[in-house]
Amino acid sequence: MAQAINSLKVFLHSGGPLGEIARKELAKFAQDHSPVGFVSAANLGDEKAYFRRIQGVLNELRMEALHIQWNRNPFKDLSKARSIYVGGGNTYALLMRLQKARLLAPIRRLVQRGIPYIGSSAGSNLAGPTILTTNDWNVVGLSQFKALGLVSFNINPHYKETDPAMAPFSETRDDRIREYHVVNQNPVVGIEEGAMLIIENGIVMVRGSSRAKLFCPGKNPVWILPGEKVPL
Amino acid sequence: MAQAINSLKVFLHSGGPLGEIARKELAKFAQDHSPVGFVSAANLGDEKAYFRRIQGVLNELRMEALHIQWNRNPFKDLSKARSIYVGGGNTYALLMRLQKARLLAPIRRLVQRGIPYIGSSAGSNLAGPTILTTNDWNVVGLSQFKALGLVSFNINPHYKETDPAMAPFSETRDDRIREYHVVNQNPVVGIEEGAMLIIENGIVMVRGSSRAKLFCPGKNPVWILPGEKVPL
Repeated sequence: MAQAINSLKVFLHSGGPLGEIARKELAKFAQDHSPVGFVSAANLGDEKAYFRRIQGVLNELRMEALHIQWNRNPFKDLSKARSIYVGGGNTYALLMRLQKARLLAPIRRLVQRGIPYIGSSAGSNLAGPTILTTNDWNVVGLSQFKALGLVSFNINPHYKETDPAMAPFSETRDDRIREYHVVNQNPVVGIEEGAMLIIENGIVMVRGSSRAKLFCPGKNPVWILPGEKVPL
Repeated sequence: MAQAINSLKVFLHSGGPLGEIARKELAKFAQDHSPVGFVSAANLGDEKAYFRRIQGVLNELRMEALHIQWNRNPFKDLSKARSIYVGGGNTYALLMRLQKARLLAPIRRLVQRGIPYIGSSAGSNLAGPTILTTNDWNVVGLSQFKALGLVSFNINPHYKETDPAMAPFSETRDDRIREYHVVNQNPVVGIEEGAMLIIENGIVMVRGSSRAKLFCPGKNPVWILPGEKVPL
């Protein structure tokens, strides 16, 4: 079991347009694992347009993309993919659709067998034990929150420490994560825009041009800089 | 039934410290309905300290406060209250605790019989059909989202149109409400900090020093100014 977990290859980022550093990291991570199966299920708008955009990025990085459509025979395309990329959008819609399509267990199994997993925003949330630290609203009324559990910590993408312009008198991210730890014990990692977590050989590294922040219950949160290991 | 609904008296605000205008409106709304039963269940921290703070505000406005504690014989205190004030915190924790304590139906019944309802932030969300347009995270893993349904529209408290400093590349409130309307049909009203909705005689008015914004599926959202009626 420990060996199975150590073989996981996981790349999690926040989901904004990929800068040059992030593109290089993505290419290094996935270039030997083309075609990349792209899951667009988090998108509540035009999934095909979203696929074409990501396909453009992957082609520029000399990788092929396969569109894995949750509602159109996804298993056939999944079996051809040599890596899996789950994109952003609404995390609750993503998880609900993958539950309906019965895609969670097959994706988990493939990643446990060594197929690299790339998550962007909602796709990063999906890699945790649950999606309950997403920034999204549960607009679809989802009631089961268990996710892929590829990593032991929950994710907060687009992490930002301060938000002076957002909502005066409503909670900051740190307040919300503190609330999460009133009732949950597993660590939460906030990923700033431009940062990524790369998990290989059982080690979680921060890469990119920004930072990650580790929250453990009862402890002060700590910043992890690019090139540093997340002390889990 | 229509008569029952028309008799509802509901006061919903975002939840920041009450400015002078808001205090005047609150006094006008509730002064003949003291003691005010205050529900602190949304607070995942020190509920007693929260009660004392609100008690201070109500005393200044010459009203008495009763602490309705979801986990300590709430029905007795509820029966003495001549109005109900549900405070802010985590909306999912609030609803979960009121479900556990079986307080939703009794509160709904009292308000339908003419007991005024005051909601602040999470307490405002609770007045809608569901709480699925809260800004909060579902840190408690709640799976049933049906709320008091005192009004037909959902609430987004602390509404802010733009958030340049918050989370680049993550969704704005308007994006999130648009996603909500992909799968839900009832209107959503965003309440800016400093604004309040006052519902009396079946009419929803905006009061205070800021605005509300009405979102209906397939239509452009419209701003409603203080002193104006929400066209529902």
